Amino acid sequence: MAIKTTMTPIAKASLELHEKLKGKISTSVKYAIKDKHDLSLMYTPGVAQPCIEINKDYNKSWDLTARNNTIAVITDGTAVLGLGDIGPEAGMPVMEGKCALFKTFGDVDAVPICIRSKNVDELVRTIYLISGSFGGINLEDIGAPRCVEVERRLKDICDIPVFHDDQHGTAIVVAAAVTNALRVVGKKWEDCTTVINGAGSAGMAIGNLLHDMGMGNIIYVDRAGIVDPSDRQFNQYQVAAAIKGGNRKAVKGALADALKGADIFVGVSVPGALKPEWIRLMNDKPIVFAMANPTPEIMPDIAKQSGAYIVGTGRSDFPNQINNLQAFPGIFKGALSVRAKQITEEMKHAAARAIASMVKHPTPDNIMPSALDKNVAEVVAAEVARCWKEEVARKERAKQAERAANENLRASAKAEKTAVTAEQRISSSEAIVANRNDIRQFNKRNKKASTKKTKKSPKKTKK
Amino acid sequence: MAIKTTMTPIAKASLELHEKLKGKISTSVKYAIKDKHDLSLMYTPGVAQPCIEINKDYNKSWDLTARNNTIAVITDGTAVLGLGDIGPEAGMPVMEGKCALFKTFGDVDAVPICIRSKNVDELVRTIYLISGSFGGINLEDIGAPRCVEVERRLKDICDIPVFHDDQHGTAIVVAAAVTNALRVVGKKWEDCTTVINGAGSAGMAIGNLLHDMGMGNIIYVDRAGIVDPSDRQFNQYQVAAAIKGGNRKAVKGALADALKGADIFVGVSVPGALKPEWIRLMNDKPIVFAMANPTPEIMPDIAKQSGAYIVGTGRSDFPNQINNLQAFPGIFKGALSVRAKQITEEMKHAAARAIASMVKHPTPDNIMPSALDKNVAEVVAAEVARCWKEEVARKERAKQAERAANENLRASAKAEKTAVTAEQRISSSEAIVANRNDIRQFNKRNKKASTKKTKKSPKKTKK
Repeated sequence: MAIKTTMTPIAKASLELHEKLKGKISTSVKYAIKDKHDLSLMYTPGVAQPCIEINKDYNKSWDLTARNNTIAVITDGTAVLGLGDIGPEAGMPVMEGKCALFKTFGDVDAVPICIRSKNVDELVRTIYLISGSFGGINLEDIGAPRCVEVERRLKDICDIPVFHDDQHGTAIVVAAAVTNALRVVGKKWEDCTTVINGAGSAGMAIGNLLHDMGMGNIIYVDRAGIVDPSDRQFNQYQVAAAIKGGNRKAVKGALADALKGADIFVGVSVPGALKPEWIRLMNDKPIVFAMANPTPEIMPDIAKQSGAYIVGTGRSDFPNQINNLQAFPGIFKGALSVRAKQITEEMKHAAARAIASMVKHPTPDNIMPSALDKNVAEVVAAEVARCWKEEVARKERAKQAERAANENLRASAKAEKTAVTAEQRISSSEAIVANRNDIRQFNKRNKKASTKKTKKSPKKTKK
Repeated sequence: MAIKTTMTPIAKASLELHEKLKGKISTSVKYAIKDKHDLSLMYTPGVAQPCIEINKDYNKSWDLTARNNTIAVITDGTAVLGLGDIGPEAGMPVMEGKCALFKTFGDVDAVPICIRSKNVDELVRTIYLISGSFGGINLEDIGAPRCVEVERRLKDICDIPVFHDDQHGTAIVVAAAVTNALRVVGKKWEDCTTVINGAGSAGMAIGNLLHDMGMGNIIYVDRAGIVDPSDRQFNQYQVAAAIKGGNRKAVKGALADALKGADIFVGVSVPGALKPEWIRLMNDKPIVFAMANPTPEIMPDIAKQSGAYIVGTGRSDFPNQINNLQAFPGIFKGALSVRAKQITEEMKHAAARAIASMVKHPTPDNIMPSALDKNVAEVVAAEVARCWKEEVARKERAKQAERAANENLRASAKAEKTAVTAEQRISSSEAIVANRNDIRQFNKRNKKASTKKTKKSPKKTKK
């Protein structure tokens, strides 16, 4: 836990604002209760009716309650900003801030919740148990590698989107930045090599998304050097990401080795991790995204002096700010608008492309839209929603095709059965006829025999 | 689960309103984010400072986050209105309605949460784990007897007020009604007998509160008749309540037997439970609170015709509406304003008296303030807050007294120790002196002896 003791002017002003506000968000009532009639509609006895409707049809809970437009922003307080594990309650100012951004930029209602546990099972269970209250879950500032497992397990059991912004929000904005940077330098995705420095949960999410969107080659570098699947010191997630990423030339060694001939550097690591001279090792028109915050892996002016063609950071005081704020409000806004059950890979791609599309004519110093441009969320939301609708339509078509195929199967099976039945009926009626003949003949024989017997028996009794 | 299939005009209008609103509450941002500077104060990098402050001092979480004025309204959906166990999500319209009332009448921010579990351990654990996000917990519509255990256990482990409104909110408004009814009929609490029909969690909470506020005698009646501590069919909670309540004349039998000579009837049971002729068995000026909702134990006009002097119900269309709405917004408003760690018994008494005090000149048809009078919550909040402050001051005085007593004890112990040490020193120095004398004498003797020996020995060697 590295906690600063000196207070910058911004920190001081922010603290004063927090002291004044005593909470950055509040609740509002959407329909004013002025008289008894209002009360009977908003509460008892009228409120029983929507309860009954949801009890009859669970899906009505999206029509009749606030989960229609409400998500939870949830943390365990273990990886808050650069402060580390500061505890659940201490993470709340960030959660509230995030909720304020969701509302301001996406008109999404968001409720901040901190959980007093670091146990994966307990985090998953607690979040699942309260998930019926919301239309989505935004996980935030949960330490790695726990965050990966928590998200994966929740996605399996929840019927609402679960999204760990520190992983996927970051990945989406980086993918948007890469999209426009490659437009500027005129390179194709499949021809490029990206080096990701910092193979944590964010780094791997970035790599996986870039790979899925067509990046030709990805090399991960962590504290111990280039991630090598044969080296046991790397964890299962790192190994899986490295294999997927490619590292086509099987480069070994350190960051400098990885950067030789690479097109893009993405840093999600520590200040100063990128030495200026290493940029000269890169392919022509090097792209450098130094995302460590607030102090990047290399300062933009130094990167430029050292040959970087495009430089982006997480900071608002340099060109090309790459900020999650460009992604998360629109993603949830879009997902909620179509009641998506999850954020699919396609929705992430669509979000990245939508963000990139906001810059009509990208230049080296202008590849990203402003973080404060509220149109970004609108466009992202529309694309994300379109993507889910297509997914649903595709699945519906597949279902229909399946159903039609089943119908055909059933029809032919029925026809066959009918044929069989007819045949059976014929043979069975033949059998019945045959049987009847047998019975008749048997009875005939029997009758003769018994007639004989009865004829004989009087004789016997006579004896 | 008894779910109505016909829809009243109110039910229809409420459903339409719910369909239109898609959620009755939303979130608001308390400080508009207009530019980068606002963003840096409300979010990164400024937001790190309040995080750091809370990490240093947990109590700062009330100064710097929304828990200052935010509670959670939580259900498991097992006892929603009169609908029974309709499921967590189906309970949400009621929870949202309650949150709307908290905001409208108490200016308390409230977040509705439903939990997908009926297991007591799981409910307690889940609520505890998220309790750091809030300044209070209002439990709602949780089935009995689970609700009693859930509340008791949460009160033990949470550092914020936990309040089950169906129990204690109801108890408080009934106690307020009793307060004013007794003023009207001119009887003293200690002289009265109250019969509570329906010995469930609400009935017992009412009885316990009335007892603590001075009710002379209380008789509980349940489906099986008068609750008899010696009868094994009643559960531990009912037995404890019955013993506390008194039943001074040890009346046995059914409701009619209990009502002979009783002053007050409180029904938290079923429509029609009180027969008109039984009112004639009661003491003079009978008080009848028929709280079954929406159809009371006896209709007010019939009760009046049968001799009831004061009649109250839960309904807004008759005089003397006894409604939790008169209690819960003010109770939490008051508790939050002084950061109370719990709702004490004294705070409940104070709330009941405050509600009663809102009717300056009670009459048989006017013993309760209007449920829509927003001043009620103000007055209740002030009294509840005063009560907690007194409690804190009392504890502080007790602590100081304890500290002073300890100081005295320590001082006298020290003095004693000093005296003892001095004495010991004296005696030990005497001992040393004595010892030294002994040693000297011993040495002297020894010396003489050895001198003798040495004098002798040469003689021996001479032998």
